[in-house]
Amino acid sequence: MEIIVRKYGGTSLDSIAKIKKIAETTKKSIDQGKKIVLVVSAMGKSTDELLKKAKMLSKHANTRELDLLMSSGEIVSSALMSIALQELGLKAISLTGFQAGIDTNSTFGEAQIISIDNKRIHNEINKGRIVVIAGFQGYNENFEITTLGRGGSDTTAVALAASLKAYICEVYTDVEGIFTADPRIVKNAKKIDYLSYEDMLELANYGAKMHPRSIELGLHYNMPIIIKSSFENKTGTIICNIEKLNDLQKRGIILNKITENRNKVTGVTSERNISKITLHSIPDKPGIAAKVFKPLSEARINIDVIVQNISRNHKTDLTFTVKNEDLDHALIIVQNKSIKNINYENITSGSNYAKISIIGSGIQNTPGYAAKFFETLFKSKVNIEMITTSDIRITCLINDTDLDKAVNKVHNVFDLFK
Amino acid sequence: MEIIVRKYGGTSLDSIAKIKKIAETTKKSIDQGKKIVLVVSAMGKSTDELLKKAKMLSKHANTRELDLLMSSGEIVSSALMSIALQELGLKAISLTGFQAGIDTNSTFGEAQIISIDNKRIHNEINKGRIVVIAGFQGYNENFEITTLGRGGSDTTAVALAASLKAYICEVYTDVEGIFTADPRIVKNAKKIDYLSYEDMLELANYGAKMHPRSIELGLHYNMPIIIKSSFENKTGTIICNIEKLNDLQKRGIILNKITENRNKVTGVTSERNISKITLHSIPDKPGIAAKVFKPLSEARINIDVIVQNISRNHKTDLTFTVKNEDLDHALIIVQNKSIKNINYENITSGSNYAKISIIGSGIQNTPGYAAKFFETLFKSKVNIEMITTSDIRITCLINDTDLDKAVNKVHNVFDLFK
Repeated sequence: MEIIVRKYGGTSLDSIAKIKKIAETTKKSIDQGKKIVLVVSAMGKSTDELLKKAKMLSKHANTRELDLLMSSGEIVSSALMSIALQELGLKAISLTGFQAGIDTNSTFGEAQIISIDNKRIHNEINKGRIVVIAGFQGYNENFEITTLGRGGSDTTAVALAASLKAYICEVYTDVEGIFTADPRIVKNAKKIDYLSYEDMLELANYGAKMHPRSIELGLHYNMPIIIKSSFENKTGTIICNIEKLNDLQKRGIILNKITENRNKVTGVTSERNISKITLHSIPDKPGIAAKVFKPLSEARINIDVIVQNISRNHKTDLTFTVKNEDLDHALIIVQNKSIKNINYENITSGSNYAKISIIGSGIQNTPGYAAKFFETLFKSKVNIEMITTSDIRITCLINDTDLDKAVNKVHNVFDLFK
Repeated sequence: MEIIVRKYGGTSLDSIAKIKKIAETTKKSIDQGKKIVLVVSAMGKSTDELLKKAKMLSKHANTRELDLLMSSGEIVSSALMSIALQELGLKAISLTGFQAGIDTNSTFGEAQIISIDNKRIHNEINKGRIVVIAGFQGYNENFEITTLGRGGSDTTAVALAASLKAYICEVYTDVEGIFTADPRIVKNAKKIDYLSYEDMLELANYGAKMHPRSIELGLHYNMPIIIKSSFENKTGTIICNIEKLNDLQKRGIILNKITENRNKVTGVTSERNISKITLHSIPDKPGIAAKVFKPLSEARINIDVIVQNISRNHKTDLTFTVKNEDLDHALIIVQNKSIKNINYENITSGSNYAKISIIGSGIQNTPGYAAKFFETLFKSKVNIEMITTSDIRITCLINDTDLDKAVNKVHNVFDLFK
């Protein structure tokens, strides 16, 4: 029989009562004859608490040590979940990333899965056991524990689903699914029934909570992903291609009628807490960008948007964004000798910006969407600081104070509440 | 250069401030040219907290899952300690029991170390790194995580010290060393400077806090063990044989003058919270004891003292003690059909007893010690419920309410305060 992989996030596991409840839900599915593999995140805020302890000891803690530290949170969840399942009379076993055979490269803190040796998992399944796998973690060739980056349990789940040839990967979380906008900002935001991998990738990168690599893996392996609420029996958001959607509907796995989204804008995403840094008048020659971003990446500062316009007189301006809390550290680094050597004229920076994006297949190539987006911001007296686009996304950097207003207006203009 | 293995217990690691302090102490030793391997327990009460969560889910949680769960606590400590050391500019690396090559049998919850493959540890030491090893844990031949039982980090430390041919194993704790009696009960209890392994074994089994198997290993490998305070610079208690003691004093490793204890009673130990169960008039034939204790051990109930006197008319009484909290569970088991089949006449039980023991090499074979002990209890109007002895220990079961009085009187009578 085919396998379902189910992933439960930290908010779904933040108490013993919730773990019990998930065990009961799992029992119901088992009683219905389903074959289930669980992937679990760390309980509630426990990863944050571990990180906080590490930060009290060092601001630049070694990532190899941090990975070993943080991997413990998921191990705790998986063992507790297995105990909860056994208490209900089910056969269960918890496995660490290492025991589950999740082989990664050695990029601590952002490791990528190279392969999954699923022999042990299959053995356990063949013994009739529900396998509960600690998400977010793997091991490298030297038996070092690695982690896949924050939110990495999503990626564990989709990778396992692909490896085990599951027919679906269900991602359980504290929300009903993916919304047309952040429901905390837009009251009439609507849950999206169906998304293509491409749209979800942009949504995942630009606000909605899914580990982006999990969506890439879903796309690569053609693995359908459902995002749904852990404790409400609602249909959630399904992410797959149209052929697979039809197939799942035909087999009765998806019961609600989903039609392809005709409105090309599928959602408005937003993100707060952004700072920008501009290096003015840098020489427009090869290798400059690398010189700037390599030391930033070595300091583990996450760069988000990068904008560089065409040059005048062989000079150009380079702007990029970081999280507010990384601004000071990033400024110290770009003022360092090695970067100063590239001879920029001066640096400006600012904090408390926000990003607003519209997402939808083909919108960048269809006339009118960008214009309508910019016009809406203009009419709402929202100043646009920066613009960047992809094939299926248009993003503006605006002042944080304008964000709520902007998201609501844009959500309305593109009729997303309907 | 020779290695020192240092073990820090949970109370020495119950805050980030204490972890920092231990890192600083370690740095001082490294600056003095010492080569150090650290073994750490879980922070403060974290193992208890994990166990509490598991108990909320199941009263009979699977020991394989419990071991995986509990192993996470030591991993957290080791990673944090390594980060703290690195922050001081030292080279350090934390290793799990698996990474440290601590190979055990498969008795989850009470696993025994079979061998240590110390290749990885030596590699790290050769790179100039301080190796910080998660105590209490190992792995079996199927790559399952095992634990050595509560307090097992002591055993990890002594086993590693033996494997690495360290010249000493230092066990740091929240007390100054081993005392002639529990200082909470006896105000003028004295710290013991020197103990033989044999005496310490009895002390460790009968009250003083050390994992008994760590002492057995020390004896087997002739590894000197010092128990001392983490944060006070005091000499502690050294456990080794006399030849080694002379050797360590000659080499200046132990500076204070220690003479062999002439008083044959080295300490009075005590333990509260004890219940007893008696099966009356059981048939005195082979196999009966096994029939009683096997189901109790399978239920993971720790049996402490067992007493069975000579029989009359081929019948005898069998008494054993358990912890107060295990009494109800134990009674259910001995009333089960399989045990009932042995045809005991009836069962009696009682709770809230305490154990008091005197410890000292040869006291059991030297006339006078036992008599003096019993006489002291009698004169103090303390009733003796049961007596058991070993070569170097005499133990009485008494009422818990009499314990403080009894321990103080006995401590005085044997001149232990001098």
